Amino acid sequence: MRSVSIIGTGLTKFGEHWDKSFRELIAEAGVKAIESAKIEGKTIEAIYGGCMASGRLIGQEHIGALIADQLGLNPIPSTRVEAACASGGVALRSGILAISSGTYDIVAVGGIEKMTEVSTEAASFALGGAGDQETELFHGATFPSLYALMARRHMEEFGTTEEQMAMCSVQAHKNGVNNPHSQFQREITVEDVMQSGYVASPLKLLDCSPITDGAATLILCETEKAKKMGLENAVEIIASTQASDSLALTGRKSLTEMAATKIAVKEAYEKTKLEPKDIDLVELHDCFSIANILAIEDLGFFKKGEGGKAVEKGKTSLNSEISVNPSGGLKCGHPVGATGVKQAIEIFEQLNGTAGKRQVKNAKIGMAHNVGGSGATAVIHIMKKT
Amino acid sequence: MRSVSIIGTGLTKFGEHWDKSFRELIAEAGVKAIESAKIEGKTIEAIYGGCMASGRLIGQEHIGALIADQLGLNPIPSTRVEAACASGGVALRSGILAISSGTYDIVAVGGIEKMTEVSTEAASFALGGAGDQETELFHGATFPSLYALMARRHMEEFGTTEEQMAMCSVQAHKNGVNNPHSQFQREITVEDVMQSGYVASPLKLLDCSPITDGAATLILCETEKAKKMGLENAVEIIASTQASDSLALTGRKSLTEMAATKIAVKEAYEKTKLEPKDIDLVELHDCFSIANILAIEDLGFFKKGEGGKAVEKGKTSLNSEISVNPSGGLKCGHPVGATGVKQAIEIFEQLNGTAGKRQVKNAKIGMAHNVGGSGATAVIHIMKKT
Repeated sequence: MRSVSIIGTGLTKFGEHWDKSFRELIAEAGVKAIESAKIEGKTIEAIYGGCMASGRLIGQEHIGALIADQLGLNPIPSTRVEAACASGGVALRSGILAISSGTYDIVAVGGIEKMTEVSTEAASFALGGAGDQETELFHGATFPSLYALMARRHMEEFGTTEEQMAMCSVQAHKNGVNNPHSQFQREITVEDVMQSGYVASPLKLLDCSPITDGAATLILCETEKAKKMGLENAVEIIASTQASDSLALTGRKSLTEMAATKIAVKEAYEKTKLEPKDIDLVELHDCFSIANILAIEDLGFFKKGEGGKAVEKGKTSLNSEISVNPSGGLKCGHPVGATGVKQAIEIFEQLNGTAGKRQVKNAKIGMAHNVGGSGATAVIHIMKKT
Repeated sequence: MRSVSIIGTGLTKFGEHWDKSFRELIAEAGVKAIESAKIEGKTIEAIYGGCMASGRLIGQEHIGALIADQLGLNPIPSTRVEAACASGGVALRSGILAISSGTYDIVAVGGIEKMTEVSTEAASFALGGAGDQETELFHGATFPSLYALMARRHMEEFGTTEEQMAMCSVQAHKNGVNNPHSQFQREITVEDVMQSGYVASPLKLLDCSPITDGAATLILCETEKAKKMGLENAVEIIASTQASDSLALTGRKSLTEMAATKIAVKEAYEKTKLEPKDIDLVELHDCFSIANILAIEDLGFFKKGEGGKAVEKGKTSLNSEISVNPSGGLKCGHPVGATGVKQAIEIFEQLNGTAGKRQVKNAKIGMAHNVGGSGATAVIHIMKKT
């Protein structure tokens, strides 16, 4: 199978973009990526774009064609992929498969979401479409309450505390301060989190990722071609795996683990012959603080039930045992369709040693972990510097 | 590149399914396809599902995970693809690329839309998201009016008449009568069309495809593996191409041709070394009668401007010069996300000689032509009996 590398990246600032439209965000990230790859736009042969809920958020579907249009890249094929908050990761995987198939050598992968055009309430209902509309959302269970159920169960089974969850948010903000694309540029304390209002007990406002606008773009290239082009900053994608689980929490065997994450990461480890200890940094899906704890366990960095304590002991902070979310993670901005692509961009930066103050020392291998809904889709990518 | 064949199909009746949910339609088509392929469900390695507007139509996104869930196929990867009314065709192409890449041998491709859960007005606005929300839909230009502009221009440039367009609908209904999955089971006359009310002049009610619920599923298999399995009804997909155009009509050089269709079909002809005369039947994207005329020209069956006359002379009826839409086409049911998959199912039936009263005699090679929006996405598949 043909290998695929990332050769260029483009990212908008994550935040509330009152002065930029969905289309302008696509154009900004896309043009930056093309410039970064030092290629001409016309060498791109296909586009895959991840976007979750543009229909309900801005009244627009057919996002693949829109992206090609905005970037002046017609008539190349351009396809939208949707997997809720994993849309970006699944779009990346689609781009990889398209190159692996031999159909294309150079592909652009984008992720986009403009979430502030509607009320927070409307956005919340749109996001609820990532879960089970019939058995969850219809009955009022939006995402904070679904993750609250998981948090409560984790506390019950393993003694995880609200303070440990709060520390996930504190660490995220600490990293985010050094990320110019982060939505939040300030540190917070455990006390800040504990004193923020309950959204769905035990989750408080600062346990939750924000509503965000943003776009991200990657340029992918077949690895041998990238070498021939002399692209020294190319980062090879050595595993791309994906798994599914029941859409609703009621279908799960356990509320304290995400089966799809475990299955996808197991396949990725097998494929690369790597173990958790070989991973220098991970950009994981911390849509809520409890999701951070679940992920570091399910990805194999810590034993099940020991995630909370690991965070408390600082084992997931920058340049510790495993550097978790040097970008600041979803906690510092989560434009749902863009998140999976942005995770890959952070790893590209880290492996190239260009991450500035948030640089993970001697980073050779990075992992991206993107989740859709309450865990019904999980996508894993492992990358290394070639 | 590894070749891909269709080895099984499943289709629900197209129509207004007041007694079946979105999920039940998925399950019905999926189970039929698995039974048809004579495989066990657990041999399926991945799913690609086309769906356009489930967010706005039924409040549900994350359709990939939902499909895997409904079919009991967790934890395999399951991905939703969206390209407006070309969602099904693009999902098929995604499944083909995934097998071509060597990642999978057997993949299920589904298409689904449940359009009757909301008012016709709300459905119309949801469908409007296939065009340009900012320059078209926002100003009231829903799809009948966009295609009406194309029809009016075709009449002006080439003398195409409303009666010729009406004949497209008459032919579609004539074929649809013999399709048990068709939404309409009755013939209509040119007079019926002419006397139906204007929706957007010159297009009348019976020039338009209907609002439809329905689901369709294909089982794809790597061609050599299908041969080894002794699957005699396998149909090989010998070309899969896709192209993009501007989202809005204002971006087009011409209103009387679809550039994306022309580019995609040219590539498909080149790849297969076939010419229009080699195609025995085509399932083309007749969302409106004028779209039928545009397509038979753009696909190369007739010269530009001569499509209306060709229809009038019966050159596109069953077993004539080119058998157009033996299934009855979109005119006899258009659940947007399912349409592209259903087109491939009709070709599978025709090439296997199992299409009953609507059988195209001696059919060896078939083409599917699926369009998104007013032509911003076009997908072509050419299939032959192996």
